[in-house]
Amino acid sequence: MLEIAVLGAGRIGRIHAGNIAAHPGARLAGIADTDPAAASGLADALGTRVLRLDDATRADALVICSPTPTHADYIEQAAAQGRPVFCEKPIDLSAARVRPCLAAVHQAGVTLMVGFNRRFDPHFAALKARLDAGEIGRLELLTIISRDPSPPPISYVASSGGLFRDMMIHDLDMARFLLEEEPVSVSAAASCLIDPAIGAAGDVDTAVVTLRTASGRLCQISNSRRATYGYDQRIEAHGAAGMLRSGNVFPTTVQLADAQGFRSNPVLPSFLDRYAAAYRAELSAFIDAISEGVAIQPNGEDGLRALLLADAAVEAAATGRAVQPAAV
Amino acid sequence: MLEIAVLGAGRIGRIHAGNIAAHPGARLAGIADTDPAAASGLADALGTRVLRLDDATRADALVICSPTPTHADYIEQAAAQGRPVFCEKPIDLSAARVRPCLAAVHQAGVTLMVGFNRRFDPHFAALKARLDAGEIGRLELLTIISRDPSPPPISYVASSGGLFRDMMIHDLDMARFLLEEEPVSVSAAASCLIDPAIGAAGDVDTAVVTLRTASGRLCQISNSRRATYGYDQRIEAHGAAGMLRSGNVFPTTVQLADAQGFRSNPVLPSFLDRYAAAYRAELSAFIDAISEGVAIQPNGEDGLRALLLADAAVEAAATGRAVQPAAV
Amino acid sequence: MLEIAVLGAGRIGRIHAGNIAAHPGARLAGIADTDPAAASGLADALGTRVLRLDDATRADALVICSPTPTHADYIEQAAAQGRPVFCEKPIDLSAARVRPCLAAVHQAGVTLMVGFNRRFDPHFAALKARLDAGEIGRLELLTIISRDPSPPPISYVASSGGLFRDMMIHDLDMARFLLEEEPVSVSAAASCLIDPAIGAAGDVDTAVVTLRTASGRLCQISNSRRATYGYDQRIEAHGAAGMLRSGNVFPTTVQLADAQGFRSNPVLPSFLDRYAAAYRAELSAFIDAISEGVAIQPNGEDGLRALLLADAAVEAAATGRAVQPAAV
Amino acid sequence: MLEIAVLGAGRIGRIHAGNIAAHPGARLAGIADTDPAAASGLADALGTRVLRLDDATRADALVICSPTPTHADYIEQAAAQGRPVFCEKPIDLSAARVRPCLAAVHQAGVTLMVGFNRRFDPHFAALKARLDAGEIGRLELLTIISRDPSPPPISYVASSGGLFRDMMIHDLDMARFLLEEEPVSVSAAASCLIDPAIGAAGDVDTAVVTLRTASGRLCQISNSRRATYGYDQRIEAHGAAGMLRSGNVFPTTVQLADAQGFRSNPVLPSFLDRYAAAYRAELSAFIDAISEGVAIQPNGEDGLRALLLADAAVEAAATGRAVQPAAV
Repeated sequence: MLEIAVLGAGRIGRIHAGNIAAHPGARLAGIADTDPAAASGLADALGTRVLRLDDATRADALVICSPTPTHADYIEQAAAQGRPVFCEKPIDLSAARVRPCLAAVHQAGVTLMVGFNRRFDPHFAALKARLDAGEIGRLELLTIISRDPSPPPISYVASSGGLFRDMMIHDLDMARFLLEEEPVSVSAAASCLIDPAIGAAGDVDTAVVTLRTASGRLCQISNSRRATYGYDQRIEAHGAAGMLRSGNVFPTTVQLADAQGFRSNPVLPSFLDRYAAAYRAELSAFIDAISEGVAIQPNGEDGLRALLLADAAVEAAATGRAVQPAAV
Repeated sequence: MLEIAVLGAGRIGRIHAGNIAAHPGARLAGIADTDPAAASGLADALGTRVLRLDDATRADALVICSPTPTHADYIEQAAAQGRPVFCEKPIDLSAARVRPCLAAVHQAGVTLMVGFNRRFDPHFAALKARLDAGEIGRLELLTIISRDPSPPPISYVASSGGLFRDMMIHDLDMARFLLEEEPVSVSAAASCLIDPAIGAAGDVDTAVVTLRTASGRLCQISNSRRATYGYDQRIEAHGAAGMLRSGNVFPTTVQLADAQGFRSNPVLPSFLDRYAAAYRAELSAFIDAISEGVAIQPNGEDGLRALLLADAAVEAAATGRAVQPAAV
Repeated sequence: MLEIAVLGAGRIGRIHAGNIAAHPGARLAGIADTDPAAASGLADALGTRVLRLDDATRADALVICSPTPTHADYIEQAAAQGRPVFCEKPIDLSAARVRPCLAAVHQAGVTLMVGFNRRFDPHFAALKARLDAGEIGRLELLTIISRDPSPPPISYVASSGGLFRDMMIHDLDMARFLLEEEPVSVSAAASCLIDPAIGAAGDVDTAVVTLRTASGRLCQISNSRRATYGYDQRIEAHGAAGMLRSGNVFPTTVQLADAQGFRSNPVLPSFLDRYAAAYRAELSAFIDAISEGVAIQPNGEDGLRALLLADAAVEAAATGRAVQPAAV
Repeated sequence: MLEIAVLGAGRIGRIHAGNIAAHPGARLAGIADTDPAAASGLADALGTRVLRLDDATRADALVICSPTPTHADYIEQAAAQGRPVFCEKPIDLSAARVRPCLAAVHQAGVTLMVGFNRRFDPHFAALKARLDAGEIGRLELLTIISRDPSPPPISYVASSGGLFRDMMIHDLDMARFLLEEEPVSVSAAASCLIDPAIGAAGDVDTAVVTLRTASGRLCQISNSRRATYGYDQRIEAHGAAGMLRSGNVFPTTVQLADAQGFRSNPVLPSFLDRYAAAYRAELSAFIDAISEGVAIQPNGEDGLRALLLADAAVEAAATGRAVQPAAV
């Protein structure tokens, strides 16, 4: 039985810790957090104990859900202990910090999985499997629509790394996941349309990106920080033999028909609902990979590549030029 | 912490036992089954113990998932011990047996909940809540479509009580739940169209029923024992101010578009998937009701009334006459 | 070029006259109406002339859109002149009047087509074609939902023959069209729920019917005189190998998503919009059949059979008994 | 009664001529074509006469459906005669030729309408009207998906002006129509993925464009020359208060459910079907504008602006830079 420690007792830490506790192949070794009250609150709720940070990196495996600036350090500590790590995205907001961290992971020979949860969403995973099965032939055009229900607090915006590195990085990873070719060119356009305070904090709230691969596959991504109708998460893959798409998820199938028309619910309002199954499947994949000693994706390189695409998008939006992403 | 024993380690027993084990307000007291191997298999899987039948009826509460002919006896035993009971539908296939059983429950003053799980399905429950909220005004016409993915084994058919008492009883309960008036007239038509062996076993596989309430509300139910596209479960409520409907549930939102058209998945294939959330909510309602000492529905009378409607449907199908259901 | 006269310059006469005028294989011979102003108004609008009734029955073919009580007489006049006739449904509200009329038609050897326009709706016609092509194997269960947007004026109700003969007759014809077996048993339930004035006029406004064929196929029909969300016209055919359904038609594909959910338009509000293409196709079939000298459906016998089913439904609703429709 | 001549008896000429012939406010003056057989074929079919080109420009109004290289000349001839003109898009493939043509139109003070038919599609027009009515507040993100069922012949490709000027020009006009601000920046990416012969002819078959307006509104357009599931025409407008979208149009509402899932038809396969109503409404708008002496859109400037956006897209795709469209 794999004993897994969780670092970070915030919102996402709570999800992963709960999923570990419920997993038949793992046991929750404990919770560590720089805020002892947060750690003991979550530990109590799940019937586990509070761990010191140093002890956490000595569990069989570590799940890192602490604030972004701490990720790379903790990964390196776990690597030094030879422990497999699951780390919430991003590894770091700076590629310059990610690279030595990945080198340490590589040298230690430990497993590092990065938390791009959407790869494990049952809807997107089914789309990917059917793409792989050749149902639409060669992929040509990929469309990713990703819109948050509402903007994060301005305090978060300021330290988030910006929309491209904070939000769109998920879509960039999905693009890589589905395109099956590395994008060689990134162009972008972005605006602050929702809240001037976001602009004042140096960020944008509405952005689009175009990716092009070496063989010419094209991908369009659009992001908005606000969708009044819920958390909008859609993917559409257009290929030589057809089109596969994955739509939004609704809380119920109930529909009201009256003089105003036919009305369904808004879509699921939060990533916690929309991706609950994805978080479970993601952690399960981590546990399985460790238990079976097999390689896992998305790994550290996937984390870096998505960040490099986000960096390229930032530059492209600023310059109006298509940018080639930096090499790994 | 409520300690709940489960009687019956079959398919549905496994579901309820698992839901008890995962419920924060309850503990699984153990599993009893006339087949010791089945009992210990399930008990081991859930980390609980095997119980003798007599001990099971002495837990804080009892969940009965044993074969139908044993239900009424076990209910009476639990009632004699003053224990609250959740019993899978039906209480018995004969109203003559149900009545004294309910009398015993009444005399003992214990809680009896009957397993009409569909009332707890999030989709149907939302429809009901919105009906109650007046979104379509006064209900006039109710349509219930319920089709199994494939017929049960002939061995099951023979002892099932027939389609009306075995399968349609769920829809009859939903009709009562949603109509909010007791049906005063039942007409029915039925055929054996899918498999002659079902007819040879004295049953039908395709059936429709019409209910009429005292105020004139109408309800149409249709049942088939086979739907190639999955487990078809739909309800449509037509009222003075609009229509509310609850559609089928699909495993994914993925859609393929090609020269043949736009294709979604078949709907969820089994009641275990379709009603997984309903089973959880149902048991949770049982646990909450006991813990809080409040009345619960669907109760024994609901179980009897649905059976009496099924009996009326059997007679109506045989005679071609609209039949008034027997009094409780 | 077939010269066709139109009898009756009302709402439906206007439609048929317009379709004749626009048909490349026919010419509008003129319009006859007992109200000369109505006749000349329509004739002027379509660039044709007013005809005396006697002259109308001497055109190459006659389209009867006059009030129901006049249908049988005009059919007989046209038959006496050897002219093919298209007659709006019903031939008459009484089977006793329909039978001699059909005998006269038969004796004269003329073509009589009855206006069950829904057979020619592109959606229902496609469903029928795919049913015939075997896409769902043997048909077992047919569901027909037909709801008017709002009740007709009480003055109309009083002389309409009642919901079963006036409104449901269309659905009974569709049932015969799709079941491909004659119903041998009709049961029915009906209520006055929408407007007490309808009940005071001796009619119902909400009704359901169950049909059963000799081989056991079942059909459920539901009618309401009021649907707040438009003219609701749906058919669902459940068979051994699958299900075919034809849904409602929306004026646009536009959907609004906001905090209230996802909202489509109400469905097309009127039979004039919903069945505009059906009326064109129906008349085209009439013209083609005459031009090519081939038999046509729905014919007089179809008109009578649908009426006999409606008569059986009236009796079934009144007695609570399944009724065998009278023989042709 | 407005007498309108049609120049060009090809596929689109046939549509416009038929719509003129059926319009109550216009009469078809005749058909002119450099190919006399084509002209007389269409003229005979519609009961009109063949016109010499010079006579055509002297009718009350002229509809130009001849090959693109002739458009500007014919517009200038009609302008010289003081005749209002409807011209199929584009006015010319070169802005250098369009500008003097528009100057001539301006000087003559005649009406010039350009055939961007999609503005008149009932679905897109309803979306536009609801956008204008403020249903989603301020527009922020526009997504236009436009995919042909199959590539045109290579012979056509070579003289088409390329995908951006031939196909995407429609989407660029729709973007202007809906954004209600002029795009100030155009970026693009394009590939030849479907047929190498298209690349050999110097064109692309798959392309995406991003537009940005002065206030920061963003628009993504994607084009493919091949969609196996029909002629894919969708628009989605995301705003501060919600999202409006217009989906594809299906030939029927029939759906088949079986073990493979739920399958609708492919979407309408051709622009002739998809935009039949748009072509009628477009011509009706032209006739109404002339009859009532009011200004009309899309006019010559709209034609030029869409072309300048296409030119900018061509440059952007070639250079990888965001391009500011040339001034009118």
